[in-house]
Amino acid sequence: MENYRECSKKVKDVSLQELRHRLAEFARVRGWDQYHSPRNLLLALVGEVGELSEIFQWKGEVEKGLPNWSHDDKEHLEEELSDVLLYLVQLADVCGLILAKLLSLKYLKMLRNTLSSTLLPLLRNYYLPEFIILMCA
Amino acid sequence: MENYRECSKKVKDVSLQELRHRLAEFARVRGWDQYHSPRNLLLALVGEVGELSEIFQWKGEVEKGLPNWSHDDKEHLEEELSDVLLYLVQLADVCGLILAKLLSLKYLKMLRNTLSSTLLPLLRNYYLPEFIILMCA
Amino acid sequence: MENYRECSKKVKDVSLQELRHRLAEFARVRGWDQYHSPRNLLLALVGEVGELSEIFQWKGEVEKGLPNWSHDDKEHLEEELSDVLLYLVQLADVCGLILAKLLSLKYLKMLRNTLSSTLLPLLRNYYLPEFIILMCA
Amino acid sequence: MENYRECSKKVKDVSLQELRHRLAEFARVRGWDQYHSPRNLLLALVGEVGELSEIFQWKGEVEKGLPNWSHDDKEHLEEELSDVLLYLVQLADVCGLILAKLLSLKYLKMLRNTLSSTLLPLLRNYYLPEFIILMCA
Repeated sequence: MENYRECSKKVKDVSLQELRHRLAEFARVRGWDQYHSPRNLLLALVGEVGELSEIFQWKGEVEKGLPNWSHDDKEHLEEELSDVLLYLVQLADVCGLILAKLLSLKYLKMLRNTLSSTLLPLLRNYYLPEFIILMCA
Repeated sequence: MENYRECSKKVKDVSLQELRHRLAEFARVRGWDQYHSPRNLLLALVGEVGELSEIFQWKGEVEKGLPNWSHDDKEHLEEELSDVLLYLVQLADVCGLILAKLLSLKYLKMLRNTLSSTLLPLLRNYYLPEFIILMCA
Repeated sequence: MENYRECSKKVKDVSLQELRHRLAEFARVRGWDQYHSPRNLLLALVGEVGELSEIFQWKGEVEKGLPNWSHDDKEHLEEELSDVLLYLVQLADVCGLILAKLLSLKYLKMLRNTLSSTLLPLLRNYYLPEFIILMCA
Repeated sequence: MENYRECSKKVKDVSLQELRHRLAEFARVRGWDQYHSPRNLLLALVGEVGELSEIFQWKGEVEKGLPNWSHDDKEHLEEELSDVLLYLVQLADVCGLILAKLLSLKYLKMLRNTLSSTLLPLLRNYYLPEFIILMCA
């Protein structure tokens, strides 16, 4: 177990596409993909969001950084956050949608929606190129 | 709009850490981070999972790849999947947890849990190094 | 345990107001009401909906009446359905809203919304009195 | 509209069985019951819980009785609470389970679980008869 934790400390990052591939392979090898219909995965996702909520349910308002949480509560939270992500990535995958692509489009829409129409032309010239470089790199 | 779509087609990938940084910056610049308490973000996440479910609610069982879905339904689904991810990444962030790290640990646990104890020593020698290279690169 | 089950077979009905009173009393006696803030109860509700979803998550489409479900699965489902209802009633209560009242108003709205405007005057004269008798009795 | 509200003020209560019958009849008359498979209704329920959560999502901690909420926010909340209940009752119904029965059993279990084993015999003689009268009337 200690080895695993140590390994995880060194892990810096993972991309959505890598994650998608790994999870698909993981399910395929184990023969789980037969159960991975869109609505099955959606309900599994809802289940995990429920478990996530249970961690927060009796705590009243919670401060950023969870200053007073026990180590066990934090570890439990880590588990549930991961579970939600895993099912989300798999749900997008079986629907034939690429989450990484969706996001950049979504992000552009958010950027646009939070700007008044007067600012938009300015943004298109000034802010967007920088953004496109970031996102389309 | 067409430009945005075109751009999004070229986008290949995004990492969880990049996403985290961008979303944090996005919220900070707009002064939204004052609303981003853990439980506010959690409820926002639940709200988006609800919207995701509404897309699937009257459809009966849905085939992989969504073969008979309209373009509008697919686009709506893309939106909601992205929204769930955005709030999930932000929730992990305000809790001080790094989703990318959690995942690799989680993945190792899943790998371990699906293997019998006899196979585990074998795995540790054979499969894990490859896995550690993948995850800890 | 057998006694309880026997009792429950004889139980015919419970009203929303009775349920509300009993649950409030139940929480008060145990000192639980200090934890029953609106958002705590909401997250508890989400948690139970998650547990409800987990029962259905790997089953594919499920037929009405659950013909092929085991006794244990049905019992588990009963538990979770009840839990959702208990938290829902308590959430409405701590918000100062009376679920029984809301429902009749909601029902009238649904009735109205599913009727074309040409039918509405007819309904008002013909159907509504019967309905009002039913609901306002 | 005013008439409906006035009516709703007079409404005192509704039982779970009445509600079940009315909703089943409501769906049957409109031909909606063909869409009311267990998983369709479950996802509809999740959708409504999402809408409920959205009302609370940016509010931080909320006091009992919602003292500072606008009339519109309260009305919206009433709507969503009702919607959750309607789908919950219908979900139990299409699963062939009677929510009113489940509850009393559940309630007895809760009662039992919150009592130590030493107190249980006492309760069975003292508290339970009163409870059974209430529940099995």
